[in-house]
Amino acid sequence: MPDTSATPSPGLIEALGNLLGPRGLLTAPEDLAPHLSDWRALYRGATPCVVRPADTAELAAAVKLCAAAGVAMVPQGGNTSMVGGAVPDETGRQVVVSLARLNRIRALDPVDLTMTAEAGVVLKAAQVAAAEAGCLFPLSLGAEGTATIGGVLSTNAGGNTTVRYGNARELMLGLEVVLPDGQVWDGLRRLRKDNTGYALRHLFVGAEGTLGFITAAVLRMYPRPRDTALAFCAVADEDSALALFRRFRDRDESAVRAFEYMSGTGVDFCLRHIEGVTLPVSTRADHYVLVDLASPRPDAALRDMAEALLAEAMEAGEVLDAVLAESEAQAQKLWKIREEHPEAQKREGASVKNDVSVPVSRVPEMIRRCSEALVRMIPGSRPVPFGHIGDGNIHMNLEQPPGMDAGAFLARSHDIMDCVNDIVREMDGSFSAEHGIGRLKTDMMPAWRGGAELDAMQRIKAALDPWGLMNPGKVFPAGGNHRA
Amino acid sequence: MPDTSATPSPGLIEALGNLLGPRGLLTAPEDLAPHLSDWRALYRGATPCVVRPADTAELAAAVKLCAAAGVAMVPQGGNTSMVGGAVPDETGRQVVVSLARLNRIRALDPVDLTMTAEAGVVLKAAQVAAAEAGCLFPLSLGAEGTATIGGVLSTNAGGNTTVRYGNARELMLGLEVVLPDGQVWDGLRRLRKDNTGYALRHLFVGAEGTLGFITAAVLRMYPRPRDTALAFCAVADEDSALALFRRFRDRDESAVRAFEYMSGTGVDFCLRHIEGVTLPVSTRADHYVLVDLASPRPDAALRDMAEALLAEAMEAGEVLDAVLAESEAQAQKLWKIREEHPEAQKREGASVKNDVSVPVSRVPEMIRRCSEALVRMIPGSRPVPFGHIGDGNIHMNLEQPPGMDAGAFLARSHDIMDCVNDIVREMDGSFSAEHGIGRLKTDMMPAWRGGAELDAMQRIKAALDPWGLMNPGKVFPAGGNHRA
Repeated sequence: MPDTSATPSPGLIEALGNLLGPRGLLTAPEDLAPHLSDWRALYRGATPCVVRPADTAELAAAVKLCAAAGVAMVPQGGNTSMVGGAVPDETGRQVVVSLARLNRIRALDPVDLTMTAEAGVVLKAAQVAAAEAGCLFPLSLGAEGTATIGGVLSTNAGGNTTVRYGNARELMLGLEVVLPDGQVWDGLRRLRKDNTGYALRHLFVGAEGTLGFITAAVLRMYPRPRDTALAFCAVADEDSALALFRRFRDRDESAVRAFEYMSGTGVDFCLRHIEGVTLPVSTRADHYVLVDLASPRPDAALRDMAEALLAEAMEAGEVLDAVLAESEAQAQKLWKIREEHPEAQKREGASVKNDVSVPVSRVPEMIRRCSEALVRMIPGSRPVPFGHIGDGNIHMNLEQPPGMDAGAFLARSHDIMDCVNDIVREMDGSFSAEHGIGRLKTDMMPAWRGGAELDAMQRIKAALDPWGLMNPGKVFPAGGNHRA
Repeated sequence: MPDTSATPSPGLIEALGNLLGPRGLLTAPEDLAPHLSDWRALYRGATPCVVRPADTAELAAAVKLCAAAGVAMVPQGGNTSMVGGAVPDETGRQVVVSLARLNRIRALDPVDLTMTAEAGVVLKAAQVAAAEAGCLFPLSLGAEGTATIGGVLSTNAGGNTTVRYGNARELMLGLEVVLPDGQVWDGLRRLRKDNTGYALRHLFVGAEGTLGFITAAVLRMYPRPRDTALAFCAVADEDSALALFRRFRDRDESAVRAFEYMSGTGVDFCLRHIEGVTLPVSTRADHYVLVDLASPRPDAALRDMAEALLAEAMEAGEVLDAVLAESEAQAQKLWKIREEHPEAQKREGASVKNDVSVPVSRVPEMIRRCSEALVRMIPGSRPVPFGHIGDGNIHMNLEQPPGMDAGAFLARSHDIMDCVNDIVREMDGSFSAEHGIGRLKTDMMPAWRGGAELDAMQRIKAALDPWGLMNPGKVFPAGGNHRA
């Protein structure tokens, strides 16, 4: 899908300025800068302007102007993509469209357990609004203080609570979308059941802005938890981590809010680099898990359940040592070990990230095989697998060997990703579990999703965005659909 | 979308016979008959043959033959559509393609909690296979002894447990699809997380066979329940039914497996017409609910929870009388009252069905307004609302006045449906909550989903089925996309 879009003319930019006013159009280099590079600093693009409409009607009018001029548009929310999904390319032809000013919560109903939020609402703000109404909006991820509702829906974001509540997709009942020609589709339905034709909303979720702009969504909330328990456990090996997950899931699947795996290496990095982190158990182990339980039932006795299951697991040799949080403060300290993994890895040196998934039953094998293969390929390198074992989604990251030149290590990035992906593919897995394709992974689409699947995606793209103006260069490979 | 398909030639039918063998092609009138009319006997179509491939490869080859000949195909599973979605039209040009012989369960994994089932597997058989592996496949509906996996996915079926486990869509992780040109898309991924391009699987689910043939699916299972409780309650009014739902949901959302509303009229019909049904409570009321609780935790104490919440609800005047099932046999007797509603209505006389939904909070108002308007329109007629109050989905049915001529009553069907739908539409509801569009409701699409939404659906249809061969005359209105 070559980008054949036009260069924005001075006349178009003037028309956008007249439409949107001074707050609605940025053109000064210092104002453009934060919109041009991604959070991981993988890319640095260029744009003549950032469009910042105040509401859906303004956005629709701006899109009509751009579409009429044949100019490409790059939707941007909190710009926290891990795969360069929200930044323009280097041509200077692509206009960035920021949804930041569409930041109202239009409605919230604790009986329906629905919230209608605009695209620019920050995820954390949606969580807070739900909590203030006595409800729970469960989507939770590292970037929640910056990521927006439009972004988490456009990327079908996952995060820590997916094992219980699903991805962003499962928390969405309806959408409002500005289509590539500027038409507004009002699909903001607050219905639990509605079988009236194709599920368009599920097409826009996860489309990474290549089919239109999500401007608002009806989100699904849950009753707020009234009982919780949190355990940090040293476990014997990868199989034991999975066995422990099964114990909790099979006993009370709905109580398992999160179940996170961490390697001994990753925890060691946190102990070394992150202030205030101490090992909560007395045994230093090669594998740990965090078991986070929650229930709206005040009498769910989750702590008793956790103690009983952990005792069984110790008896079975799966759990070596475990601690249960005694307070909310201690719970936050335990979660901090998991949450600081990316920062600790960064401080330890250069690292390469792999966001992969396999069927849940195959996670232990995947971690072992990838770790062995990576160390064989780069002796002294340190695998740092961590993440959502209950979803089959592990961040199979690799830290550089101590003392190796960071640049030399990063020059092997593609070898490292290929090594992991080859194993994951043999195991019927995915090369992008929750981060999406963005710009970083487009080249992998033909090999993994080529043939009939990518062909169908391209037909849909051409049907809904015939001029190819929506976020060009993302999701689809530049080279077309050829299976590797 | 006019059907411009070709008439099947004798040569095509011979080629299909050579490909599929004698078991794979039906042409005798007595063999065709069961495939030509729908369960509700709304339509009676014609076809020269029913194609019954043995596996996906045979289906793909048959589709290639039909596509090359420009012949239209009508996918059929258990043929239990409520809206005429699986029968051919009267032209005799449309070939029926039965998926009945694709009836293998290819894999079942209790660790992953996934089952890979072919399209022709009967829903009940999938439930049984899950149970035999110690798991739960929760989708449950009246036609489960006949409806197939391909059908429930193609229609995104709902049923009794949607309030807890979602529609068929939420129980699907991956699909195998034969596309309209005979290509096979293998999307049978067993992954909980996979963000690699557009969510094609969600497009085929609910497309009612207009985009291709679902031939197999990876289904999502749950841990099996080990504690249950069931209450049958007489409640004061519609608002009390909703208030009771909120009590249970907000206390333990994940324990509410089903929450069904029934009118006094509907229960009276069951008492009158269904052998073995007796009123389980001592108070005859105008409104009843069935509260079905389940948890995988053996110590969930659901009965205690139910007693406590029912006591609070009695105190508040919401619940007039209630009984808790003392045994599995009694639980089945209580469920029978709800399940026999359609049969009891049939025996009482002619009735018109409305499968509508509104936001959960507006269900009481919807039931009241529709009931009043219907009785005003046809004096003596008897509203029989029942169904899934927790999903906002009520079957807002109307029974004929006693003694009225059935034909004269049924002649008012469209008036009755319009009356209900006008009110539902004012309340931001849906005219088809769980039954889909099929052939019955295509005319309503422009008014309810017209403009940008129906336009996008039509573009997708044209992109994936450019010759319009898949299930013509279903979902899309014959008259095009014009908002009423």
